[in-house]
Amino acid sequence: MKVKDIFNFLNAKKIIGDENLYISTLSPINDIIEGSIICVDNNKYLESAFESKANAIIMREETAESIKDFKNKTIIIYQNPKEAFIKLLYFMFENKKYDLGTIKETAIIEENSNIDKEVFIGDYVRIGKNCVIKKGTVIESGVFLGDNVCVGENSTIHSNVSIHDRCVIKDRVIIGSSTVIGNDGFGFFEVGGKQMKIPQRGNVIIENDVEIGANVCIDRATLGSTIIREGVKIDNLVQIAHNCDIGEHSIIVSQVGIAGSSKVGHHCVLAGQVGLSDHVVLGDRVILGGQSGVMSKVKIESNSIMLGSPAQDINREKLKMIAEQKLPELIKLVEEKFETKIRRVK
Amino acid sequence: MKVKDIFNFLNAKKIIGDENLYISTLSPINDIIEGSIICVDNNKYLESAFESKANAIIMREETAESIKDFKNKTIIIYQNPKEAFIKLLYFMFENKKYDLGTIKETAIIEENSNIDKEVFIGDYVRIGKNCVIKKGTVIESGVFLGDNVCVGENSTIHSNVSIHDRCVIKDRVIIGSSTVIGNDGFGFFEVGGKQMKIPQRGNVIIENDVEIGANVCIDRATLGSTIIREGVKIDNLVQIAHNCDIGEHSIIVSQVGIAGSSKVGHHCVLAGQVGLSDHVVLGDRVILGGQSGVMSKVKIESNSIMLGSPAQDINREKLKMIAEQKLPELIKLVEEKFETKIRRVK
Amino acid sequence: MKVKDIFNFLNAKKIIGDENLYISTLSPINDIIEGSIICVDNNKYLESAFESKANAIIMREETAESIKDFKNKTIIIYQNPKEAFIKLLYFMFENKKYDLGTIKETAIIEENSNIDKEVFIGDYVRIGKNCVIKKGTVIESGVFLGDNVCVGENSTIHSNVSIHDRCVIKDRVIIGSSTVIGNDGFGFFEVGGKQMKIPQRGNVIIENDVEIGANVCIDRATLGSTIIREGVKIDNLVQIAHNCDIGEHSIIVSQVGIAGSSKVGHHCVLAGQVGLSDHVVLGDRVILGGQSGVMSKVKIESNSIMLGSPAQDINREKLKMIAEQKLPELIKLVEEKFETKIRRVK
Repeated sequence: MKVKDIFNFLNAKKIIGDENLYISTLSPINDIIEGSIICVDNNKYLESAFESKANAIIMREETAESIKDFKNKTIIIYQNPKEAFIKLLYFMFENKKYDLGTIKETAIIEENSNIDKEVFIGDYVRIGKNCVIKKGTVIESGVFLGDNVCVGENSTIHSNVSIHDRCVIKDRVIIGSSTVIGNDGFGFFEVGGKQMKIPQRGNVIIENDVEIGANVCIDRATLGSTIIREGVKIDNLVQIAHNCDIGEHSIIVSQVGIAGSSKVGHHCVLAGQVGLSDHVVLGDRVILGGQSGVMSKVKIESNSIMLGSPAQDINREKLKMIAEQKLPELIKLVEEKFETKIRRVK
Repeated sequence: MKVKDIFNFLNAKKIIGDENLYISTLSPINDIIEGSIICVDNNKYLESAFESKANAIIMREETAESIKDFKNKTIIIYQNPKEAFIKLLYFMFENKKYDLGTIKETAIIEENSNIDKEVFIGDYVRIGKNCVIKKGTVIESGVFLGDNVCVGENSTIHSNVSIHDRCVIKDRVIIGSSTVIGNDGFGFFEVGGKQMKIPQRGNVIIENDVEIGANVCIDRATLGSTIIREGVKIDNLVQIAHNCDIGEHSIIVSQVGIAGSSKVGHHCVLAGQVGLSDHVVLGDRVILGGQSGVMSKVKIESNSIMLGSPAQDINREKLKMIAEQKLPELIKLVEEKFETKIRRVK
Repeated sequence: MKVKDIFNFLNAKKIIGDENLYISTLSPINDIIEGSIICVDNNKYLESAFESKANAIIMREETAESIKDFKNKTIIIYQNPKEAFIKLLYFMFENKKYDLGTIKETAIIEENSNIDKEVFIGDYVRIGKNCVIKKGTVIESGVFLGDNVCVGENSTIHSNVSIHDRCVIKDRVIIGSSTVIGNDGFGFFEVGGKQMKIPQRGNVIIENDVEIGANVCIDRATLGSTIIREGVKIDNLVQIAHNCDIGEHSIIVSQVGIAGSSKVGHHCVLAGQVGLSDHVVLGDRVILGGQSGVMSKVKIESNSIMLGSPAQDINREKLKMIAEQKLPELIKLVEEKFETKIRRVK
C-alpha cells in the first residue's frame, strides 16, 4: 500500500513528501515497525516519531507547520489523527471472519431449538432445549447455553461462555470468554443460624450493541430481569448482581462490583474497581472515579462526578485529599500551640 | 391458580376481597405483571402496588388496616410478607429438574472411577482417574474434574467448572460456572532475583451445604487443606488463597479477596470487595463493611463490626469519616487563628 | 522413609535422637499428621510442635540448644527450615506427570498446525489453524486456542483456558484454569452518545517462566503487543488491560487491576486489589501495598514503597493514617479552644 492510497482512503487534506512511498503496516506510537505509518495526536511523541523507522506520519496541519525537518518522512495532514488511527485499524486489518453456515459436527443442540442457517457454531458447543439463535451470530467453541436461551442477530459469544436458562441476548452483542450470564443471584435468608437459599427464578436480558468482557458475572434476577441496556460496555471481571438495571450506553470498567437491585442511569462511567452496594440509584451521566464506593440505598443525582469511598463530589474529595496531606503537620502545630498531646479516646 | 389456593398454601390469616380471583404469576415489587400476586413488606411500595395491575397483594394486618380503598385487589393477610414471597417462589416456580440416571455419551470418565447410577453427567464433561461421584449429584456440561476428586450427594457443579486433583466436595454443594477449585496456591521463594515455585501439594475441602458463585477461585493448600466449612456462602469472583479456613455459615460477598493462611470464624460477613491480607484471623460473627482491608497477621475479636482500610470499629470509622469531611475548614480555621500556613514537610 | 534418609537428602548438619525412626509424611505446622516430619522456622510454633504427634522436627541449631526435653522426637539440625520444607515438598510428593506423546482422540486440531510429538493434549481441546505447540507442553481438557497461537516448550495450560488468535506463549509458562489471554482490549470512542468499538488488532506475548493463576484476563493490544515479561508471577482474578507491559520477575497479587498502556518495571510487587489507572509508569522494584491506587499517567520512581489511594510513600501514608486516628479529638480540641463549631462549607 502506498501513502497516497491511505491519503485517498482518509480523504485527507494534504500530502507533504513522497506520495508513492510504500507503507508496511500501521504502528502504535510506542512500538513502531520499520516502514510503517503512524498517527501523532500528541506533540510529546513528535520527536520519537521522527527518530523512528516509520515511513509516514499522520498529523494536524498546525503540528506540521511547526516542524523544520521532515527527515525524509512523508506527512499526511489530517485534522483528527486519533480518528485516522481508528479508521486505518479497520482499513488495514480485517476483522476475524467466521464461516457463517457452519455448525460443527461436535456441537450438540438439544430438541426443539430454532437455529438460523447463517450462523457459526463451533466445536463442543452445547445448546439446550428450546433455544433460538438468529442470523449472523457466532457461538465459539466450548460455549454452554442452557434451555430457552435466545441469542439475536450478529452477536458473538466467545469460547467457554455460559449462558443459563431463559436468558436473552439481543443483537450485535459481544460476550468475552468464560463470562457467565444468568448464574443464580446471591440471596439467602437466615433460619436458626443457617443461610437458606432464596430461589432465583428471573433471568438476564442483554440488549442490543452491548459488549461484555471476559470472566464477567451477570446474575439472574430473583424474579423479573437483570437488565443491561442498549449500548452498555462492560470490561473484564465485572460483577453485576441480581435485579440490577444498567442504563443505555454506560461504561463499566474492569473489576467494578454492583450489588443487588442497584440501578445505573444512562451514559454513566464507573471506573475500575468501583463498588456499588445494594439498592443504589445513580442518575444519568454520573461519573465515579476509580476505587470509589457507594453505600447501600444511596441516590446520586444525574451529572455528578464523584470520587472516594464513600463517594462524594470530586472537587470536594480532592480538597479533602489535599487537606489530609497536611494532617501530621496540622496536629503538630496544634499540639505545640496548645502545649498538649492529642490522643485518640478509646 | 386462585387466590384461595395461595391462601391455603401459606396457611395465611385472612382474605379480603374475591378469593376466586385468578393469579397469573408472582411478581417482584418493581416489575409487576398483569394479574399477578405481589408481596408488600415495606409501606413505601404500597401506593405503586395499588396502582399496578396486580390482582392480589400479600401484606401484614396492620398495613391492611391503614388502607381505605383496596381498588378491587384481593388482599391476603400474612404477618411476614417476605417469607411469603420466598415460599411462593418455591411453590410457583419449580426448580430445574435434571434427569438423574443420565450420563451423556460424550462424557469421558477415566479408569477406576466410582460413579453412582443416580447422577446426571452432561456433555463434554471430563472426569479423571479414581473419582467418586455420589447419588443425586449433577455435573453440568464442560466440567473438568482432575484425578482423585470426590463429589458427595445432591451437589450441583455448573458448566465449565474446573476441580483439580484430590479436592473434596461434600453434600448439597452448589458451584457456579467457570469457578476453579484447587488451582495451585500462589507461593514462591526468591533465588537470585527469580521467583521459584513452592510446590502446592495439598487440596481443597468444600463441606456440606456450601454455595459458591461463578468465576470464583479457591486455591489448594501448599500442604494440608484449604477448607470451606459447612454452610458457607461465597458470591461471584471471590479469591480464597491457599491454606485459608472459612468458618461455618459465613457469607463472603462478591470480589472479596482472602490471602494465604487466613482464618475466618463462623457466621462472619465479609461485604463486597473486602481484602484480607495473609495470616489474618477473624473471630466469629465478625462483620466487615464493603471495601474494608485488614493487614497481614491482624487478629480481630469475635462480634466486631468493622469498616475502613485498615478496618477499625465501625462507629469509630464513621466518626473519622465525619471528621474528615470538616478537614479543609479545620485547616483554614487553624491557619487563620495562628496566622500561618500549614505545609506538608517532605 | 527413615529420618536418616531425609537427613542425607538435605545434607543436614546433625541428628539428635533416633535416626531410624520412620516418617509417615511431611506436615504443615498447623495440621500435623501422626508420625510425620515438620519444619519449625518460627519459635512460636515450638511448643505445639513438641506436643504434636510428629515423629521428627527440622530446626536451627540455636533453636535446638534452647530446648531441654525433646519428648522422644528426633531432631534434624538444618540452618534454613523453610528451605528444608520446600525441598521436602519436592522430594516427598511427586509433581503431576502427564503422559507426553498423547493427543486425546477428542482433541480437534485445525489445518496447518505444527504440534510436537512429545506433548499432552487433553480431551475436548480445540486448536485453531496455523498453531504451533512445542515439546513437553501440556494442554489440559477444554482449552481453546484460536488461530495462529504459539505455545513454547514445557508449558502447562490448564483446563478451560482460552488463548485467542495470534497470542504467543513462550517456554515453561503455567496458565491456570479459565484464564483468558487475548480478549479484545476495552477501547471505544464516542459518536453521538454511542460508544463505537476501536478494533483491537494486536496480541499478547507471555515470556518464559511466567506463571498465571486462574480466571485471569490479559487483553490483546490495540496494535502491537501486551507483554508479560520473563519470570512474572500473576495470581488469580487479575486484570491486565491492552498494551500493558509488565517487567521481568514482577509479582502481581490477586485481584489487581492494571488499566490500558500502563508499564510496570522489573521486580515490582503489586499486593492484592491494587489498581493502576491507564498510562501509569512504575519504575523497577516498586512495592505497592494492598488496595493501593495510582491515578492516570502517574510515574513512580524505582525502589519506591507506596501505600494508599492515591498511593504515596508508605512511611508518609502511615503517618497520615496515625494522624487520621486522632482527627475527631483534634476537631474537638480546636472547637473548644476557639469556642466555635467547625462546619463543612457547601
